[in-house]
Amino acid sequence: MDLRSKPRLGVIGSASCSPRIMDLAAEVGRHIGRAGAILICGGRGGVMEAAARGAKEAGGITVGILPGESDSEANPYIDIPIVTGMGQARNAINVLTSQAVIAVAGAYGTLSEIALARVAGTPVIGLETWSPTDPEGRTAPGVIVASSPEEAVQMALRAILRI
Amino acid sequence: MDLRSKPRLGVIGSASCSPRIMDLAAEVGRHIGRAGAILICGGRGGVMEAAARGAKEAGGITVGILPGESDSEANPYIDIPIVTGMGQARNAINVLTSQAVIAVAGAYGTLSEIALARVAGTPVIGLETWSPTDPEGRTAPGVIVASSPEEAVQMALRAILRI
Amino acid sequence: MDLRSKPRLGVIGSASCSPRIMDLAAEVGRHIGRAGAILICGGRGGVMEAAARGAKEAGGITVGILPGESDSEANPYIDIPIVTGMGQARNAINVLTSQAVIAVAGAYGTLSEIALARVAGTPVIGLETWSPTDPEGRTAPGVIVASSPEEAVQMALRAILRI
Amino acid sequence: MDLRSKPRLGVIGSASCSPRIMDLAAEVGRHIGRAGAILICGGRGGVMEAAARGAKEAGGITVGILPGESDSEANPYIDIPIVTGMGQARNAINVLTSQAVIAVAGAYGTLSEIALARVAGTPVIGLETWSPTDPEGRTAPGVIVASSPEEAVQMALRAILRI
Repeated sequence: MDLRSKPRLGVIGSASCSPRIMDLAAEVGRHIGRAGAILICGGRGGVMEAAARGAKEAGGITVGILPGESDSEANPYIDIPIVTGMGQARNAINVLTSQAVIAVAGAYGTLSEIALARVAGTPVIGLETWSPTDPEGRTAPGVIVASSPEEAVQMALRAILRI
Repeated sequence: MDLRSKPRLGVIGSASCSPRIMDLAAEVGRHIGRAGAILICGGRGGVMEAAARGAKEAGGITVGILPGESDSEANPYIDIPIVTGMGQARNAINVLTSQAVIAVAGAYGTLSEIALARVAGTPVIGLETWSPTDPEGRTAPGVIVASSPEEAVQMALRAILRI
Repeated sequence: MDLRSKPRLGVIGSASCSPRIMDLAAEVGRHIGRAGAILICGGRGGVMEAAARGAKEAGGITVGILPGESDSEANPYIDIPIVTGMGQARNAINVLTSQAVIAVAGAYGTLSEIALARVAGTPVIGLETWSPTDPEGRTAPGVIVASSPEEAVQMALRAILRI
Repeated sequence: MDLRSKPRLGVIGSASCSPRIMDLAAEVGRHIGRAGAILICGGRGGVMEAAARGAKEAGGITVGILPGESDSEANPYIDIPIVTGMGQARNAINVLTSQAVIAVAGAYGTLSEIALARVAGTPVIGLETWSPTDPEGRTAPGVIVASSPEEAVQMALRAILRI
């Protein structure tokens, strides 16, 4: 199995979210699985679980980069749990490991990953997510806005090819 | 010297910024020093250096939590360099170590710290900084907006007392 | 593909080593691959590369938890690079992610992982590796000594079942 | 107060230890305080607490680099708690921040710090601590053995001057 050549696509979002956002995240996961990409996520519930479930339904492979010290906090759809024991500092690992990230809705943890991704130069695709305005009045500089899960995954794959 | 009872106040901001923002950061630092608080920052240039300079001018103590593997990247106004070797993951340490943080202007690194602080429950005071709108349309939930360096430091000290 | 039920077996050792130690590490990797386990390692050269090569020769899956900020430092036999950007602090992630680790020879980096594994409660199997004597005069408390690559992998798999 | 020019001396050791080892660690701390150095430690009990107590008795300044997410786990003699939230990965920060470390007795956590210090090039002075034999049969390569707290601190200060 040649996994190394597969793109690594991150999905970031909150551990608790509405059923509608869960559906959105699962659809993102399915498109990632169909594209033959590896899903990278934080490994826990909510958006992370829905995206991993979607990716597994489509035959994909999933990696969960966990904040705690045990693999037992991984959701049931994670193939490979990475146990960091580093709390929110693991957000920095998510965005370095992913070649592009798709932010689905999200709370402050997700905003931290959007920001850390931009510092690291990792492309960010936003789907109904945060809209941060910087001190110069620019809105979400460098973040690509998508209008559907399918478009988000296509944009992310294109961004990876361009790097 | 009783340092333990002193409040630990973080200043976050960009390593490169305009002279006007440097002045603002230095004024924040001076108020921190006058208040007898310990300044926590990322230890490098720009806002971090100006704030540390201001704190030292007012007789304060400064801690720089550095991203790299050497204390040589600390600016000249850092009393105690903490060498993490962890890149941007050190942002998570800044906001856990500070009892409140003041964000002065800033780029995406600063936004990541604002967000990580809110995840950790650390109060955030904003001074001419990012204004992130969340997926529900709320602007910077939980961030306290200040209109001057003096007000920012007073708000931060009050927030620490309330915790 | 059901990866979640597969054991995750770490191999730790130096980035530079003799040809004989490379052969030993490759043989460890082959036994891990044959056992259907996932190889976890630091992702770089020497023992890490030889073990990953062996695991791939036997049809296994390999994860490399890298110290730097780019996947380009991964050796060619790593399927899934995890990019931590955390330097040696990533050693703590290796031993939390692995359900057991096999130490093959090694320098001080390897000794740090043996020690961190024991702190985390991760079983350690030693193959021609460090022999640390503690302040009470005990030699390598809790480390299981193996006499061959095959025995090391069998011992590691047994240790995982016992947890 | 000019803190920047003061040497930063780490003391590493176990969170639980015998009264005799506590006395040894306190004596190390007193010599560090008298030398006008800053004590760096893991911030918790046992050797870390005794060393910090000794340093404070001698008028020194103490920094505790904590594994958890709250400053409440710091022992009462820590002036400046650094809250990492990173578990044992914080051991890597201790040895990068210290310009030399003194290992007093200790369990596997201490051994990990001895090893991480040697990887980082930080001088290590050992006092009744681990004696690790490497795969080539060398005992504790690069570790300087001291026979008393006073000698340990003198050796550490000399090692810092030589860097």
